[in-house]
Amino acid sequence: MGRKLLEIAYLGTSYCGWQVQPNGVTIQEILQNSLYKILKYKPNVTGCSRTDSDVHAKQFFCHFDTDVNIPNNGLVLGLNTILPNDISAINCYNVPDDFHARYSATGKLYKYSIFLSEIKNPFLFGRTLLIKSPINLTLANEYCDLLKGKHNFEAFSSINRTVVDTVRTVSECYIDINDNILDFYVKADGFLYNMVRIMVGTLLEYSSGKISREDIAKAFSTGDRTLLGATAPPQGLYLEKVFYDNNDDIFFKDRS
Amino acid sequence: MGRKLLEIAYLGTSYCGWQVQPNGVTIQEILQNSLYKILKYKPNVTGCSRTDSDVHAKQFFCHFDTDVNIPNNGLVLGLNTILPNDISAINCYNVPDDFHARYSATGKLYKYSIFLSEIKNPFLFGRTLLIKSPINLTLANEYCDLLKGKHNFEAFSSINRTVVDTVRTVSECYIDINDNILDFYVKADGFLYNMVRIMVGTLLEYSSGKISREDIAKAFSTGDRTLLGATAPPQGLYLEKVFYDNNDDIFFKDRS
Repeated sequence: MGRKLLEIAYLGTSYCGWQVQPNGVTIQEILQNSLYKILKYKPNVTGCSRTDSDVHAKQFFCHFDTDVNIPNNGLVLGLNTILPNDISAINCYNVPDDFHARYSATGKLYKYSIFLSEIKNPFLFGRTLLIKSPINLTLANEYCDLLKGKHNFEAFSSINRTVVDTVRTVSECYIDINDNILDFYVKADGFLYNMVRIMVGTLLEYSSGKISREDIAKAFSTGDRTLLGATAPPQGLYLEKVFYDNNDDIFFKDRS
Repeated sequence: MGRKLLEIAYLGTSYCGWQVQPNGVTIQEILQNSLYKILKYKPNVTGCSRTDSDVHAKQFFCHFDTDVNIPNNGLVLGLNTILPNDISAINCYNVPDDFHARYSATGKLYKYSIFLSEIKNPFLFGRTLLIKSPINLTLANEYCDLLKGKHNFEAFSSINRTVVDTVRTVSECYIDINDNILDFYVKADGFLYNMVRIMVGTLLEYSSGKISREDIAKAFSTGDRTLLGATAPPQGLYLEKVFYDNNDDIFFKDRS
């Protein structure tokens, strides 16, 4: 029995998020069913994150255990003939038995895409949040700087969260604008439930002057969710990259 | 009664092309039904081109006649609340009664996007053609140069074409590569049915050495379709821009 780490990417529009649930089709379910066709049993696949409905992943990792002897590149090719067109298998690696797609991750990079336009764009629907009013970039950049560092992000999480420790370290937070698309990037050692979407909802209110620097400081010190902006809708959110320690040593040696 | 020219954009994936037909939903039909809700009658809308199923338009023009007194920007805003998310109204202009979305066009620019990758990308599905083998760019650029100029493009058209004159002038034809996406651009004074898709199918065979410079010359001189490559699938094709003479004088003055 060995553990495999699978790298995939998906457009989340048609799915009720990653995790198997009774009321809709999920990426985990589709992936497990696809693996069943190759491995002849349905492995229990553990993801690096639980993305919500309509959230996308440019890079997503999940692990599963198998004693089926199949080359990793053969598994990737096989999966891509079975998976629907909005889910791709990218790579597969052999990892140690104690490697965990979620708990071994040392950081994640998320992107949230905002389309700044008075008129909707059919090519960006489901892939960005359309915002018709201009955004004050000076304030937006100031806001990004406030999020950086080690803080108690309790206020930046949904009450549905299950974790107790709400302190996280944001190592990168910045904005990039191209062709009227504002991309908000945030990298941290971990994220609470809905954390990026609340960061983005608050970005919109901060950059329009409705939320102040003091409000953010107070949200950090009190954990009061009501000081912050709305939870931004899911379709602009992308899990961009997942980081593991010593990637090269642990698993990048063994792709074939 | 005045004539209006409407500029729209659409993702063609869900439609059986532009033109109304009995066996599927078309963009023309959706647009006419949407205009009906605003104008209280269904205008006959004439498009600048007949795009096929799965073909996209970044810019598409159509005209219709109306005696309803509605400001052009109000019509655009109203349409965007009614149109589905994969069709957008961009602008509306008052034009002279003899202006014709199709016959007044002096040129069109098409793009065909090819994703060069061994692995499919969920974000590019339905929006590019996936090609797994590398493309010889020297040959591809040489091929683009061969298409430029005034030629009889009869061989580059489907037998379903309805026009008699098959001579067209290609003023621009070039390739642009970014992030493994090869964009083939071609601008001409007019296009025959399936012309760009046959150009692209031939590009693939020319750049892999299966079709020669002499074959292209012979195709121009004989009109023999069988000398050329397959008709590339529709999903990589975009109508990028439509050109009209003296745009500024004719209609850009009257947007409001």
